[in-house]
Amino acid sequence: MSLIPKSHPRAKSLYIREKLVKGFDSGLVAKEGLMAHGRGETFDYLLGEKTSKHAQKAISAAAFLLNNSKYPVISVNGNVAALCPREIVKLAKTTNSKVEVNLFYSNEKRKKNIVRILKKAGAKEVLGINPKNSKRISGLDSARRIVDKDGIYKADVVVVPLEDGDRTIALKKAGKKVITFDLNPLSRTAKTADITIVDNVDRAINKLISECKKSRLRKAPFNNKRNLAAVVLEIKKNLARRMPHA
Amino acid sequence: MSLIPKSHPRAKSLYIREKLVKGFDSGLVAKEGLMAHGRGETFDYLLGEKTSKHAQKAISAAAFLLNNSKYPVISVNGNVAALCPREIVKLAKTTNSKVEVNLFYSNEKRKKNIVRILKKAGAKEVLGINPKNSKRISGLDSARRIVDKDGIYKADVVVVPLEDGDRTIALKKAGKKVITFDLNPLSRTAKTADITIVDNVDRAINKLISECKKSRLRKAPFNNKRNLAAVVLEIKKNLARRMPHA
Repeated sequence: MSLIPKSHPRAKSLYIREKLVKGFDSGLVAKEGLMAHGRGETFDYLLGEKTSKHAQKAISAAAFLLNNSKYPVISVNGNVAALCPREIVKLAKTTNSKVEVNLFYSNEKRKKNIVRILKKAGAKEVLGINPKNSKRISGLDSARRIVDKDGIYKADVVVVPLEDGDRTIALKKAGKKVITFDLNPLSRTAKTADITIVDNVDRAINKLISECKKSRLRKAPFNNKRNLAAVVLEIKKNLARRMPHA
Repeated sequence: MSLIPKSHPRAKSLYIREKLVKGFDSGLVAKEGLMAHGRGETFDYLLGEKTSKHAQKAISAAAFLLNNSKYPVISVNGNVAALCPREIVKLAKTTNSKVEVNLFYSNEKRKKNIVRILKKAGAKEVLGINPKNSKRISGLDSARRIVDKDGIYKADVVVVPLEDGDRTIALKKAGKKVITFDLNPLSRTAKTADITIVDNVDRAINKLISECKKSRLRKAPFNNKRNLAAVVLEIKKNLARRMPHA
């Protein structure tokens, strides 16, 4: 039972924080993942803890790309597994994507815990755990370069919610189209990806699923750099609103 | 041994992060403390990871207040104990302050670990652990209202690095002058304290110690609200520099 009162002005953010703590306690989330979540919380706070129209635009572009891809793969790490395992499975089913566990701080036990929670959430198949399927992508150090030959290695489009900059760059160099969720519009991941959804994954993923379900999506013009600049402008406006004399 | 290369552009931030992880492993830091550190990291990143002139101004004002106080007390939580135990002891000696352990997520074992690390760092006396000394301050729920009758309860000036908003408000209501370190210039703590040093405590505390050692400090005009507004303006400028077309 949560102890957070519903009336708390930032209750939703606190619920999400609780999910991370539970995820840590059940061996899904790394210590570094808890700190990374904190970093995201600040950006979310500066963005007003809601899906901006820029995020919505990126979601629409991501849905179009996913629905028109040949071999989409969703990469899952500990934080994502703790936050929205059911939604990951739903998105994979809706878009006919593979799901692959891919950790920044590789750890076999944690991987197994993540697979377990994804299967509990309805996943039939989870890639990234069979050593016989290991393939390397270039441009990364040894532990972090391993991907699954039936997953990311083969993918044309990869969804990487909450990904590290080096890895995003390596995926781009390997010729993938990259969709990411990243609350920091200035991060290397945000700037390197083809489509960056600057929003809390916990909030945005349901919107992405709904969008992917639409039968007729039109290709709208989308410029990731311009969209990121618009998000930064939004943060500046929010700062000005909260501290009027700055 | 740290694995972080010295050449890494953000090596210092990563070293600090390592201190928190070690502090967690040795029972000083709470899970929530790891996330709180991440929130601070984002603000530090937006502030350019350096002591701004506004922070320096707040440090000077804080040194003057501390050197002219009658009964100063430094409140220590898990994150502070993990980051800078030696500096806390040095600041206490320089300013003739008491040191009190005061946790947001109260936990006897964690308290003992914090006392141990402070004593190892040279503290002769650490308050906040003797139940016979418990006093309540009003305006807070039960677990968080307890302070030491020879410490915060009696203090005229309290230094609360990394403090919660409710508690800062309660300290103000109890008639204390409050000095805080808070990387979020928009937080309730930042806005409620008399002097808010918007800087990483790990970086700013040594500057505060040096300032307190100066034999003749002059009282310079200091307006906390105006100083916070100047910090927010600095963040806006940094955002504009990093994303020129926003």
